[in-house]
Amino acid sequence: MFYMCLNSIIYGDVSLEKIIYLDNSSTTKPCEGAVREINRSLTENWGNPSSLHLMGFSAETEMTNARIAVSKALHCREDEIFFTSGGTEANNLAILGAVSAGKRRGNRIVTTAIEHPSVLNVFEKLKNDGFEVVYLHPDENGTIPENELENAINKDTILVSMMLVNNEVGSILPVEKISAIIKKADSPALIHCDAVQGFGKLPIDVKKLGVQMLTLSGHKIHGPKGVGVLFKAKGVNIKETVFGGGQEKGLRSGTEGVPAICGLLGAVNELDDITKSLAYITELNSYARSVLLSTGLVKINSPENALPYILNISVSGYKSETLLHFLESKNIFVSSGSACSKGVKSYVLREMGISDKEIDSSLRISFCKNNTKEEIDILANELKNAAKILKRA
Amino acid sequence: MFYMCLNSIIYGDVSLEKIIYLDNSSTTKPCEGAVREINRSLTENWGNPSSLHLMGFSAETEMTNARIAVSKALHCREDEIFFTSGGTEANNLAILGAVSAGKRRGNRIVTTAIEHPSVLNVFEKLKNDGFEVVYLHPDENGTIPENELENAINKDTILVSMMLVNNEVGSILPVEKISAIIKKADSPALIHCDAVQGFGKLPIDVKKLGVQMLTLSGHKIHGPKGVGVLFKAKGVNIKETVFGGGQEKGLRSGTEGVPAICGLLGAVNELDDITKSLAYITELNSYARSVLLSTGLVKINSPENALPYILNISVSGYKSETLLHFLESKNIFVSSGSACSKGVKSYVLREMGISDKEIDSSLRISFCKNNTKEEIDILANELKNAAKILKRA
Repeated sequence: MFYMCLNSIIYGDVSLEKIIYLDNSSTTKPCEGAVREINRSLTENWGNPSSLHLMGFSAETEMTNARIAVSKALHCREDEIFFTSGGTEANNLAILGAVSAGKRRGNRIVTTAIEHPSVLNVFEKLKNDGFEVVYLHPDENGTIPENELENAINKDTILVSMMLVNNEVGSILPVEKISAIIKKADSPALIHCDAVQGFGKLPIDVKKLGVQMLTLSGHKIHGPKGVGVLFKAKGVNIKETVFGGGQEKGLRSGTEGVPAICGLLGAVNELDDITKSLAYITELNSYARSVLLSTGLVKINSPENALPYILNISVSGYKSETLLHFLESKNIFVSSGSACSKGVKSYVLREMGISDKEIDSSLRISFCKNNTKEEIDILANELKNAAKILKRA
Repeated sequence: MFYMCLNSIIYGDVSLEKIIYLDNSSTTKPCEGAVREINRSLTENWGNPSSLHLMGFSAETEMTNARIAVSKALHCREDEIFFTSGGTEANNLAILGAVSAGKRRGNRIVTTAIEHPSVLNVFEKLKNDGFEVVYLHPDENGTIPENELENAINKDTILVSMMLVNNEVGSILPVEKISAIIKKADSPALIHCDAVQGFGKLPIDVKKLGVQMLTLSGHKIHGPKGVGVLFKAKGVNIKETVFGGGQEKGLRSGTEGVPAICGLLGAVNELDDITKSLAYITELNSYARSVLLSTGLVKINSPENALPYILNISVSGYKSETLLHFLESKNIFVSSGSACSKGVKSYVLREMGISDKEIDSSLRISFCKNNTKEEIDILANELKNAAKILKRA
């Protein structure tokens, strides 16, 4: 019934083109290059990369091409790129793998209180296993003060995991500061960075960031769902978490998801010039802030200096979910908090000191290069309509 | 260079149609339905299933359709189907998850010596963790005698994992016997079955098999690489191995690989009548045995009563890899042992008592419904040519 409703929205009265999709941090529409490469993989080059014959070799070559493309984007070596089934698996592998390999050197592991659940819940598991877990708390701008890091990292610390860009508010975290603090503390800690929301939007140089591990996801950059990447610096030892045929140099067994990996290649090849895109989105975000504020209904939760791809707002007095469904009835798609934890109150906004009432009315707007100022105008108008029609909570 | 060579084989002088692909147990060509469903997912229905709006709901509906299709094929409930990134992940989740949840009830875990590496290597890991691992050994027909099972299963046994069809020789294992033996032994053991090589080829009814967990893979049934299934019976408690957003009812976190899941749906929908296909492949296998034996070069390693989709042979005096590359130069693709463990001597054939010399010259031929008797004739002829041209090892 609901599904038919969507079909009629998308394919019936209103065409797919008329959708205003402002939920690009949840997932993105696969680009033409991604779709093309996936189809090539499915119909022309469908061998098993582990096969010893040419069909296997040819499929492996496709993966090598993807590896090279990703390594160029991260300024690392091709053999430092490991494919996984997505960002969650890459985060799990990095954290569990590093802790498993490093547990003799110490018992403390450090992360932030505003990580994605695929990091936070791994740390919770490790806490239950007996590790001392330190959660760094953000300031009101959603970023981590340097002294929080300095206080947390000691000789017993074996891992620090910090996201590059927060998925709910867009705040940029001081990942590049960690390495010096680790050195100063004479700590053996490895650094992992969940860069899922930053990749393709901010320039990333793993050496400049000073991280040994870094996570990417395909479907946040107009690639397909079902593919992620773990960068792991050469020489850094982490243990596998999946056991089997020894694919990905033993770090991630299982026949590789070649179609999705090829899709990632297509998406990486279509990534625009980061600076140019950032300038466009910065202007769009700035326009959105001013138009939305002018409605008199909205409070901005994202800090001024956040990555402009994400704009978190509260529409005081109206429930997020009610607003979300009102907007979807107008073909506008936004998110209430992150898409990953249906219906759960945002711990990120709470950590930033935002009141429960404002959290309950928060919406996340997230942009891609296809969004326009006209779409923002329509969104602002529909929020005004919502305020007229909907009951205040 | 190699790649260009394949391109010229596939796309140049010789068309894709002229390839004789006899390596269907490594991977299969995605069928039209799979490709169509993947494209629909990529271009029309690309929302994040976790999104609260209609685009999320619509993507979730696609997954539900896939879940229903798979559950019908296994004769189980729709909510007993969990999607993973492939057979390896499903095997790992079943075994590690069951052992993690059941370790207080006992310390013994049982499997066979001829499982796929994605089972064997998990048991090796658990052995290192302190579990008592019992490996059941096959007879000369590549199957497990019932008394092996009876001797191994006791009150301390918490898990038995046995494949349905061996991936190297096609032998069918007595999975349906395990449940009665467990009851007789008053054992709390759960039963897991890796059915990757049996699904779509043998009728599978999880209740008749008596298993609580069962693994499938998409790319062995003309679906895409990058999707697998774990059937887990309702009420059976296993622990998650990946931590995050709680997708797949908390058992497998991570944004779902929706395109590949849709591809699996397309492939399951195109599965032919199992009995009819089995009759065709039985005839093809029988023809292949007779034609290959008539060359005077071949010994058959697969038992008479094996699933006929797989035919393991030895071409005495010639190295598998040399034969494989000779055949590929004639556009015939077969496997030397399984595709999963490049260059490693087959432990399955060794377990069956086959001599090292014969193992070194073994080839796995594996069929699908698109293979023909004419292709078998060409294979037999080229093996005769190989014997004339190649040096004996």
